[in-house]
Amino acid sequence: MKKLTVGVDIGGTNTVSGLVDNEGKCYGTLSFKTRDFVVFDDYIDRLCQDINNLKKVAKIEYELAGIGIGAPNANYFTGNIENPANLHWKDKAGNDLTIIPFVEMVKRHFPSTPVAMTNDANAAALGEMYYGGAKGMQDFLVITLGTGLGSGFVSKGDVIYGHDSFAGELGHICVEKGGRRCGCGNRGCLEAYVSAPGIKRTVFEVLAETNSTSELSNFTIENLESKDIYEAATRGDAVALEAFERTGEVLGMGIAAAVAVTSPEAVFLFGGLAKSGKYILEPTKKYMEQYMLKNFRNKIKLLPSGIDSANAAILGASALAWQKYNQLHADEK
Amino acid sequence: MKKLTVGVDIGGTNTVSGLVDNEGKCYGTLSFKTRDFVVFDDYIDRLCQDINNLKKVAKIEYELAGIGIGAPNANYFTGNIENPANLHWKDKAGNDLTIIPFVEMVKRHFPSTPVAMTNDANAAALGEMYYGGAKGMQDFLVITLGTGLGSGFVSKGDVIYGHDSFAGELGHICVEKGGRRCGCGNRGCLEAYVSAPGIKRTVFEVLAETNSTSELSNFTIENLESKDIYEAATRGDAVALEAFERTGEVLGMGIAAAVAVTSPEAVFLFGGLAKSGKYILEPTKKYMEQYMLKNFRNKIKLLPSGIDSANAAILGASALAWQKYNQLHADEK
Repeated sequence: MKKLTVGVDIGGTNTVSGLVDNEGKCYGTLSFKTRDFVVFDDYIDRLCQDINNLKKVAKIEYELAGIGIGAPNANYFTGNIENPANLHWKDKAGNDLTIIPFVEMVKRHFPSTPVAMTNDANAAALGEMYYGGAKGMQDFLVITLGTGLGSGFVSKGDVIYGHDSFAGELGHICVEKGGRRCGCGNRGCLEAYVSAPGIKRTVFEVLAETNSTSELSNFTIENLESKDIYEAATRGDAVALEAFERTGEVLGMGIAAAVAVTSPEAVFLFGGLAKSGKYILEPTKKYMEQYMLKNFRNKIKLLPSGIDSANAAILGASALAWQKYNQLHADEK
Repeated sequence: MKKLTVGVDIGGTNTVSGLVDNEGKCYGTLSFKTRDFVVFDDYIDRLCQDINNLKKVAKIEYELAGIGIGAPNANYFTGNIENPANLHWKDKAGNDLTIIPFVEMVKRHFPSTPVAMTNDANAAALGEMYYGGAKGMQDFLVITLGTGLGSGFVSKGDVIYGHDSFAGELGHICVEKGGRRCGCGNRGCLEAYVSAPGIKRTVFEVLAETNSTSELSNFTIENLESKDIYEAATRGDAVALEAFERTGEVLGMGIAAAVAVTSPEAVFLFGGLAKSGKYILEPTKKYMEQYMLKNFRNKIKLLPSGIDSANAAILGASALAWQKYNQLHADEK
C-alpha cells in the first residue's frame, strides 16, 4: 500500500495538517484555529482528530509512515515546545504551560507511528532537501524571510541542531554594533534589518535621509506593507530601490558570515521578502560575494526556494517525517 | 602490540612529526625545516623518512595505526593543500605547485596505512575532542588565536567541513562594516581585531585616543609583542586593559554569531592570545553573553584549551589519524 506522511504546521493563528507522499505531493489538508483550544489536551485531541480525518479528505488508501511537526521554539531532541511567544496553552488545572510535551502527547494517540518535531526553519530546510532545490545536496542553508529571519543549516545531509537543538539563529547575529533594537532585546541583529518589518524600517530610514520624492512618502509606518515596497520598486521608485539595496547589503553580509562558518553549496531564500525576486536577490548576491572570503567567491549558489509556498510549511514538516521513517528503515536493514 | 598514530604538523617554518597513543601521550617527535626542500618529491621523501625514524626515537614497539596531517589550506576531501600562502614547492620540472597532492604522495610511501589531512584549526578541534576539554562533547568549537584567527566547528561529533572542506572561517566574518583592512583583502574581519596583530592594532588605536600615560607608548608598531601587552595589563596599564576589553568585545560578538549558527556546548580558546588568561577570557565572556540571543545565555562554556600547547599541533593531527582509524574499524564490525 502507498505510504504517506502527515506534516503538521503549528502557528499562532492556524494549525494545519496535510498528507504528503515521498515526492512532496500533497493529498489534502485540514486546519483549525489554534486559539480555539485553551487546554492543551483538548488541542491535541482536535489535532489528532484532524490527522485521522485526513483519510476522508484524501481519495487514496494509504499507510501512515510518520508524523512530522513544525512549530516555533520546537526542541527536536526532547519533542517539547519551549517558551513559545505566540502559543498559549494551559494544563487541565488551568496552569500556563511553558514547556509543552508535544511529541509525547501526539504519540499517545499514535503509539505505533514515528513522530518528530522541529522548528519552522529547520522544517523548511528539510522540505528543500526532500522536495525542492536542495535535492541531492549535503551542505546548504535555507533562510526564511517573514516577520522574522529564520534559518536552517544542513551539513552532511542533516540539520545542524547543536547541543540543545536551537542552532540556526542567523537572524540574531549582530551585523551593526549598537544598531537597531531587535525584538529579542539585543541591538543590531540581522533580523532587525532583513525581514518584513526590517525593510519597512529601512524605507523610513531612507525617507528620512533623502530629498527626492517617493510614492512611499504617502504611507505611515503602520500601513506600509512589503508588497507596497516591492511594487514601488517595480515602478523604479528610488527610495524603494535603495531600501532593497541596503537590505541586500545586510543580508549579503549575514550570508557571507554563514558561509564562512559552514561553507554550503547553496543558500536558499524563502518567504515574503524572497518573492521580491531580482530586487532582493541581485543586491544580496552582489554584497554576499563582496563580503565573502576570496576562496568562497563565485562558488556558492544563491537561489529562491524550490518549494511551492502554498503548502511549504506542511511539506517541510512532512519531510521531517520521511527523514525519521528513512532512519528507522535504515536501522532495520 | 600497542597501536600508535603519527601526527604531522606542516608549517611555513618547521615540519614536525610525532608518535601519539590514543590518550594523547606523545612518544617522541622529529622535525626539519620546511624550506630546506624546494622540490615537493624531495620534501615528501624527507617527511616519510622522519615518520619511519620515529621508530628509533620512541622506546616502544608499536603498530602504525594511521597518519594524520595538519596543514594550512588543507582540503580534507581531496587530500590536497590548495594555494597555500606560506608553503612554496616546485615539481621536478621546476614549476610552482599550487594544488599539492599531499595525502596521495604520503600514501605512496605508506600504502597500507590510513592517511588523512585537514587544516590546523580543524585538527585543533579534533585534538580537543580526543585528548582535551571536549572529551565526550558532540557540539563545540575551537578558536585558535595566533597571527590569524582560525576556527574548527564540531557538530554531532564530527568536524563541519561544508561542501568544499573550507568551513570554519570564523576569522573572516565581518564584525565592522567598512572596518579595518584584513590580510584577506576585505574590511572589518574578526581576525583584523582578534589575533596577535589585531590586539596590537587596538593598542595603537587606544593610544591614539587617550591622554593617559602608558608603558606601551614606548613601543613602535614593529617591536610591540602580545606578551608586552599582557605584561602591561598585569601591571594595571589602562591602555593594555582597554585593548583587552575591546578585543574581548569583538571576540565575544564573533562567538555569539558562531553560537547563533551552531549552538555549541562549549567554546575553547587556544593559542597565544588565549594565554593571557582572565585578561582576554573575562571581557570575552561578558560580551559573548551580552551579544547572544537570550535562550543561549549562561549555558555555553567559554574555556581555555585543555591541550598542552607544546605538542598541540601534533596531537591535533594525530587525533585525525585516530578518527580515521576508528571509522575504518567501525566499518569492519
